[in-house]
Amino acid sequence: MNAHHQTPPARQQRGKTRDLILKTARTLFNERGEANVTLAHIAEHLGISEGNVWYYFHSKRDMILTLFVELEARVERNLTGDLTKIDQMQQFEDILAQSFHDMWDYRFLYRDHVNWSMDQPALNERLAVLTQRGHCAVESLLERMVQLHLLHMKEGDRSQLATNVWIVTRYWLDHCQERAAHHQITQAEMSEGIAQVYALVQPYLLA
Amino acid sequence: MNAHHQTPPARQQRGKTRDLILKTARTLFNERGEANVTLAHIAEHLGISEGNVWYYFHSKRDMILTLFVELEARVERNLTGDLTKIDQMQQFEDILAQSFHDMWDYRFLYRDHVNWSMDQPALNERLAVLTQRGHCAVESLLERMVQLHLLHMKEGDRSQLATNVWIVTRYWLDHCQERAAHHQITQAEMSEGIAQVYALVQPYLLA
Repeated sequence: MNAHHQTPPARQQRGKTRDLILKTARTLFNERGEANVTLAHIAEHLGISEGNVWYYFHSKRDMILTLFVELEARVERNLTGDLTKIDQMQQFEDILAQSFHDMWDYRFLYRDHVNWSMDQPALNERLAVLTQRGHCAVESLLERMVQLHLLHMKEGDRSQLATNVWIVTRYWLDHCQERAAHHQITQAEMSEGIAQVYALVQPYLLA
Repeated sequence: MNAHHQTPPARQQRGKTRDLILKTARTLFNERGEANVTLAHIAEHLGISEGNVWYYFHSKRDMILTLFVELEARVERNLTGDLTKIDQMQQFEDILAQSFHDMWDYRFLYRDHVNWSMDQPALNERLAVLTQRGHCAVESLLERMVQLHLLHMKEGDRSQLATNVWIVTRYWLDHCQERAAHHQITQAEMSEGIAQVYALVQPYLLA
């Protein structure tokens, strides 16, 4: 079927189909690796024609860009806000748990960036910005915990701890996937990841 | 040129060409991502015919397997040995530094495994074994440091610390590449990675 000859669907249906295509693309990229998935695979998975996919996204490049913008928005939503309003341990935990979930949902963007960024270096720069964003947020959160007398540490130690917290947070899911050569992370593994991050902070906690 | 009609080169030259092809493949896989490199790219980079490459390796699959076996041998060389003979901090540092270098030299195997393992799941299992090997080695080394009264910690803390040491060691290079969207790791970044691992152990050190 030639994509140019498709009848444009009604607007509401269009939005629904577009969302479904994006969600399927994200799932397949996550599960099979971005390099192993084509527009045809996505169409086949949805039981629609490749032309229908093409109506919404002309290339994987377009899809990846759209998914990247979604991830950026999610990260912003989680990390924006007045840090000085945070005053309980539970709030730190919530932000950490949300970070794990966001990274899991868009993990191919992190994991496969060497592949997809080859023909869109500008997006790779934005990934680096997002990485810095996460890293800085960890540093600010630790600083706030020190202010609240939840943590006690030297200024220099804080920067190194922030880097280690970021690395364990960022790569926990990769580690889980690699250690067992399996594909679905369990809720128990998510909790285990959060416990690993706590273990980093633990020696500096004021009981 | 048809590969089947190549005149077989002399044995010594064969070994040399084979090594050169492997080294070039490893470099290109590392720098461009395995999915973006073909046998033709490797031939072009070496200024030889694709048929000549084909004489040594019929597919990328063959190359990846050979490179994987090289990595396994390197890891074994670094981690095998009688741990009870280790009695100085310097020896722990040497093993750590060597681990960083080995992972750097074969980083595409770790980083791109979602791609290359699609058609060789058995090799993905072996990567999981190698990961477990590294993780266990960290745990044994920490145990030895406790025996030598270099470290002081509870049994349960040791296991969590071992996991965090492994994650920071394993993903340090990925983190460096991601935070700056650049491609060559400097010696300073290697040293910074080692310092980050020390920072993990530091709260448990007995001065």
